[in-house]
Amino acid sequence: MKTMVVIGGGTAGATAASRAKRLCPQCRVILIEASRYITHAPCAIPYAIGDLTQGEIWLYSEEEFESERGVEVYTETRAVDVLGDRVYLEGKLEGVLKFDTLVIATGARPAVPEVEGVELEGVLPVRGVEVVDKAKRLLQGARDVAVVGAGYIGVEMADVLAQMGKRVVLIDGSPRPLAKSLDPDMSAVVARYMGERVELRLGERLVKIGGEGGRARYVETDGGRYPADVVFLATGVRPNVDLALRAGARLGQTGAVEVNEYMETAAPAVYAAGDVAEARHAVTGEPVWIPLAIYANKMGYVAGTNAGLGRRAISFPPVAGASVTKFLDMYIGSTGLTEEEARRRGIYGSSISISATDKARYMKGAVDVTLKAVVDREGRLVGMQIVGRTPSVGGLVDLATQFLGRPVEDMFKAEYSYMPFTASPWHPFTIIARLYLRERLR
Amino acid sequence: MKTMVVIGGGTAGATAASRAKRLCPQCRVILIEASRYITHAPCAIPYAIGDLTQGEIWLYSEEEFESERGVEVYTETRAVDVLGDRVYLEGKLEGVLKFDTLVIATGARPAVPEVEGVELEGVLPVRGVEVVDKAKRLLQGARDVAVVGAGYIGVEMADVLAQMGKRVVLIDGSPRPLAKSLDPDMSAVVARYMGERVELRLGERLVKIGGEGGRARYVETDGGRYPADVVFLATGVRPNVDLALRAGARLGQTGAVEVNEYMETAAPAVYAAGDVAEARHAVTGEPVWIPLAIYANKMGYVAGTNAGLGRRAISFPPVAGASVTKFLDMYIGSTGLTEEEARRRGIYGSSISISATDKARYMKGAVDVTLKAVVDREGRLVGMQIVGRTPSVGGLVDLATQFLGRPVEDMFKAEYSYMPFTASPWHPFTIIARLYLRERLR
Repeated sequence: MKTMVVIGGGTAGATAASRAKRLCPQCRVILIEASRYITHAPCAIPYAIGDLTQGEIWLYSEEEFESERGVEVYTETRAVDVLGDRVYLEGKLEGVLKFDTLVIATGARPAVPEVEGVELEGVLPVRGVEVVDKAKRLLQGARDVAVVGAGYIGVEMADVLAQMGKRVVLIDGSPRPLAKSLDPDMSAVVARYMGERVELRLGERLVKIGGEGGRARYVETDGGRYPADVVFLATGVRPNVDLALRAGARLGQTGAVEVNEYMETAAPAVYAAGDVAEARHAVTGEPVWIPLAIYANKMGYVAGTNAGLGRRAISFPPVAGASVTKFLDMYIGSTGLTEEEARRRGIYGSSISISATDKARYMKGAVDVTLKAVVDREGRLVGMQIVGRTPSVGGLVDLATQFLGRPVEDMFKAEYSYMPFTASPWHPFTIIARLYLRERLR
Repeated sequence: MKTMVVIGGGTAGATAASRAKRLCPQCRVILIEASRYITHAPCAIPYAIGDLTQGEIWLYSEEEFESERGVEVYTETRAVDVLGDRVYLEGKLEGVLKFDTLVIATGARPAVPEVEGVELEGVLPVRGVEVVDKAKRLLQGARDVAVVGAGYIGVEMADVLAQMGKRVVLIDGSPRPLAKSLDPDMSAVVARYMGERVELRLGERLVKIGGEGGRARYVETDGGRYPADVVFLATGVRPNVDLALRAGARLGQTGAVEVNEYMETAAPAVYAAGDVAEARHAVTGEPVWIPLAIYANKMGYVAGTNAGLGRRAISFPPVAGASVTKFLDMYIGSTGLTEEEARRRGIYGSSISISATDKARYMKGAVDVTLKAVVDREGRLVGMQIVGRTPSVGGLVDLATQFLGRPVEDMFKAEYSYMPFTASPWHPFTIIARLYLRERLR
């Protein structure tokens, strides 16, 4: 009987374990998780804190997963080392497990800024199921709350806190929010709207967190000092590569674990999947590290399938970084490269920005959507950014992602539906393509 | 100076005229329209009746269009004949116009059922801007309203009337609503929901409309008699091909005007665009007649571009029939072929039906979305139907349309965004592809 050990019970690990067991019912599949929870949803954490979720934010308890999936699960167990075909465990399960196949899905951990005061009570990284109850408790009676980091998680945390009626200060060293996924012109639209509801302190670097009696009371940046009963750290994550290195895997240039398209690492019989692993970019073809749940799911599925079948059955496709976030009723999406990134790579051709509406313009309640398409020098779409006060931004980002790397005119040829409540008679992508083609049809 | 005459000031004609004038500023471009309105939005009519629109449901008045676009416009003018390079006009502009290029965009007209009573006051086809004020007037004080025809327009009319608090009976000879775009399993979902709010009389054929003092009072079918102060006819449309035939164009097997991809008819220098013209189906490659505004727009753009430039500059792509409608908060979409259609053509392979949610399942307010994918014998997606009480159905239909004709596994490889408010960590299309692939990965 073959034994497959999966380290990490998050999205990638749980999917890999479940998938391998399904395809190889005679295999022994063991899932090891350091925390008390498996199959949890990290993206849910801000919303769970804001009480916007229902039920649990994990899919399975240990027992359910064992009985429904046939996977042996050990939570509160940490894999501390790998030597040859043995993994060494500490915690609820102690000792050594011998494996035929190992899947490393150790995820990522918060990159906590190294400043004075991060250890104070009231300072919380937005990561891990445990943070939810702690945050809820701390927020009771708190009036001033600081969020450090204006990436996706920081913006989502600020959204939730604003909805809870807190006085929020959002701090980021970059001069604009969501700087990785939006160009300055687009993040300006977001900053204008956010600035009406939270105090935006952009271009300010966190210097320290000040406290009183062991509890956080304020945050200090190189630009000022802001009262804060609670401080949320949304300052990014780093891949948890330690175990992978011990298992003989190699790191790629991004600092995450190098894998091929089958999720195999450099070490024989060792797969890696999820936030710990690199991927390849759909537009540039280069290695990237974009820790998104949707990739973790699919990487886990691919690793689990290949490990379960014992052959290279399916591959994990390149990624474009399609992502959506929101602040109050404003939805913000991005896919592929920004203009900045395209310029940095020397492939920038042109960009087309338009304002459209989510419904037919003549409908009551139609709201504006701003789109920016980035085109390379060969006339291919390489990125799109979309901002508007409508959840339909999500669907538009997914649609745009399908056109990445293809000639812009494909967006003219493509078909879209029209229905007054959901779309205009000229789809915004058709308008973008028309504007692009206009120069060429003379 | 070249003269281009465009017959029909709807979506296709106005776009063609405007486009041709832009590309050929030295040309004389004349737009002829039989009604008082140009650039109106037929899909808006139910919503304008229900007062859900803002401003006008046409984009330009005659004067605006002339001054902004440089096109000569004659409304309330009818083109009655074409002889050689001359078109004969009656109405506000009388006489003969000599043209170098003719664009026929005469659209479609309601197919009014030939039963007793259709001429009664209170019986209205849902077509033409003029119907809006008339309908609003008739609906004042009306309690019982009948809608004949449960296609898109009939469903939308029933939606609006239900919102207005009317007692609505919706009648169709087919045993189910939206029978052209939904399979029985999917239309059952719609019928169940609609049946809670309106009286559905399906599988009943209209026999007569009964009246009193010249006003409609009831509708009679082969299944019963229903009180009706107002009767809306949404019994489909037919292409207005008369003028095209006089101009030497040929009809295709669908009964609409045969055109090539450049929107050229069989007659030299005569283009046709919009509801009057045929298209080619993206999946089957066969000629189809699907009168949708979005095709009319694009056909007008293609005809106007080619006519304006005097060369075959761009082509109109094949169509898939992507469409969305709604009833109250239920959105109903379809693209490509239904299972029924695929079976009829002998290409049916399998279908995959799933239930998903519009948000992450753990979010409060997540609603169910039902999807049905139709796959051909070669494993290619040939159609998708989507029903759910969320406007995100629109974006999903557009997304599905991009996968038509491609292997189902492309939906697994494709990237989608995940964000708790707009999408699940497993996109429904990924789940469909996984279910399809499951059989093949063993």
